[in-house]
Amino acid sequence: MGTRVGKQTVRLDGHPVIQAWSAIVGAKEGQGPLGRYFDEVIQDEYYGEKSFEKAESKFLRETFAKILMKGNVSAGDIQYIFAGDLLNQCISASFGIRETEIPFFGLYGACSTMGESLSLGSMVVESGFAERVVCITSSHFCSAEKQFRFPVEFGSQRVPTAQWTVTGAGGVLVGSTGNGPAVVHITTGKIVDMGITDANDMGSAMAPAACDTITAHFRETGLPHNHYDLIVTGDLGNHGKKMCLKLLEENGILIRDFYDDCGVMIFDEKRQNTNCGGSGCACSAAVLAGYIMDKLTKKEMNRALLVSTGALHSPTSIQQGESIPAIAHAVGIEML
Amino acid sequence: MGTRVGKQTVRLDGHPVIQAWSAIVGAKEGQGPLGRYFDEVIQDEYYGEKSFEKAESKFLRETFAKILMKGNVSAGDIQYIFAGDLLNQCISASFGIRETEIPFFGLYGACSTMGESLSLGSMVVESGFAERVVCITSSHFCSAEKQFRFPVEFGSQRVPTAQWTVTGAGGVLVGSTGNGPAVVHITTGKIVDMGITDANDMGSAMAPAACDTITAHFRETGLPHNHYDLIVTGDLGNHGKKMCLKLLEENGILIRDFYDDCGVMIFDEKRQNTNCGGSGCACSAAVLAGYIMDKLTKKEMNRALLVSTGALHSPTSIQQGESIPAIAHAVGIEML
Repeated sequence: MGTRVGKQTVRLDGHPVIQAWSAIVGAKEGQGPLGRYFDEVIQDEYYGEKSFEKAESKFLRETFAKILMKGNVSAGDIQYIFAGDLLNQCISASFGIRETEIPFFGLYGACSTMGESLSLGSMVVESGFAERVVCITSSHFCSAEKQFRFPVEFGSQRVPTAQWTVTGAGGVLVGSTGNGPAVVHITTGKIVDMGITDANDMGSAMAPAACDTITAHFRETGLPHNHYDLIVTGDLGNHGKKMCLKLLEENGILIRDFYDDCGVMIFDEKRQNTNCGGSGCACSAAVLAGYIMDKLTKKEMNRALLVSTGALHSPTSIQQGESIPAIAHAVGIEML
Repeated sequence: MGTRVGKQTVRLDGHPVIQAWSAIVGAKEGQGPLGRYFDEVIQDEYYGEKSFEKAESKFLRETFAKILMKGNVSAGDIQYIFAGDLLNQCISASFGIRETEIPFFGLYGACSTMGESLSLGSMVVESGFAERVVCITSSHFCSAEKQFRFPVEFGSQRVPTAQWTVTGAGGVLVGSTGNGPAVVHITTGKIVDMGITDANDMGSAMAPAACDTITAHFRETGLPHNHYDLIVTGDLGNHGKKMCLKLLEENGILIRDFYDDCGVMIFDEKRQNTNCGGSGCACSAAVLAGYIMDKLTKKEMNRALLVSTGALHSPTSIQQGESIPAIAHAVGIEML
């Protein structure tokens, strides 16, 4: 049974285990600094499909299949899927898992979806409602550009604070038994909106939310600030990462030496021309299911705090002059 | 602790209680057969705001405030909000609860969102992760028409199978203590897609999903088919309701005498010119938080099975020739 340790944080004493994981990404992600950590790199941005949306669904579908394969389980062994994505009405997730015949909870947390799905999935396993769940999400550069900004064919110029949506999917199988990285703490984000209205600068919009959740995590758990080998935000990018560190320092939390951002890690900013770095639901999902799980299981790290970050705006809300509400969901994963 | 009774169903032995509820709706809903069950009827479709999207957010925000007021609790007493809506990137929910400072799980289940949020919220209360959560959703005729079909100003003709999106919001406060209607069973839907591609006939797309979930509910719980005083689907409308009954009869489930559909109940089809009936996230949410809670607490009903139904397509998926994946989430509510 879970124990509430603060207003936003619960501790999972039953230690749900991440039993299997997978990330399948696009060509650009494969060429990035973390390329070798991903299960597959797909060169064709259409993934053999007729549209970017269908390609994104296929990334999710294939990643889901790979998770089951790596976990040595079949669809019938999974009690729930927790999934979502950035597309309007979350069609990548719905179409991606359509054939699985598994009870499905659809989520929308923008780029925080991996943190959200892992939080809910772990809570449901911890409480005995499920033996195994899959938490998964996806994004695609071309479907996201088309929906949020301009079709890629338009060739619009990108501002320096813009980020590059990660193409791919990442997910994990959380189960009630076994050894391996366990979910120990969950700090659920509340919406933080500091009035940023520039949809081309989401790092600035999300950094205060990341800071808020990380601060709450340490305040409520009482853990020392150096408890984790890696604290990693979802997709703040270079600009947002600096801002987050500054805000944390103002709160007395000095984590510079073991803090990074998935959006900064996944691309080589200069060589790959990705401006401020990666973003998208798949950003923190692929870094979790690729790099972080690899480091944990090889004992090169023992504890990681994943802080997926999301900007909860839409093109319509921006056009109507609204600022960008942001949220960050933190999950503490430890080798026990 | 919850007990799994089948592949899709769990039983909540701790009986989380629906401690408070509220529904605020628009003028047309107020004029409908259930008008007197809603807390407030707002005549202005803009609700004093400058856009339909902002109006929808306000419906959700005001309904949330009313739930707290009726439950005699403050925002600080709520551990989680589970909310979502139909708008792209679920902005109605995000903007509606932006100021609450409560940990937030964003959901997307299309019109099944009330069933989904009530399921997850009840599971989290049952498992001791929270003492109180709010499960809430909204929809708005004008914002939905604009996004999914045509702006209302266009005056497009509606086909006979079309449904009328409910304007309003509905939600409940689920808590771990107290007397009142309790959540006893949760049967979580899996995606069912029978190949329907007509976005103007969502009743036909969703009826098989409703039938699938109701059939699983009775098969897995072993409850007699007349266990509930009311089994109510979310928004199948007249056409989908008939289809659902027929499909259930083929499965040997004869519930005609105590089965209805929120979309059929909320409008007077002929007098109000709503074609096949109501739809939208707020449809089953408002009928639950209005009519059903009233009947249960007055002991005019003792047991109700809410089966919120959702069509998980998007305008993009329809344009790309995809069929409509549908889902239905069932929650058994009983006076104990």
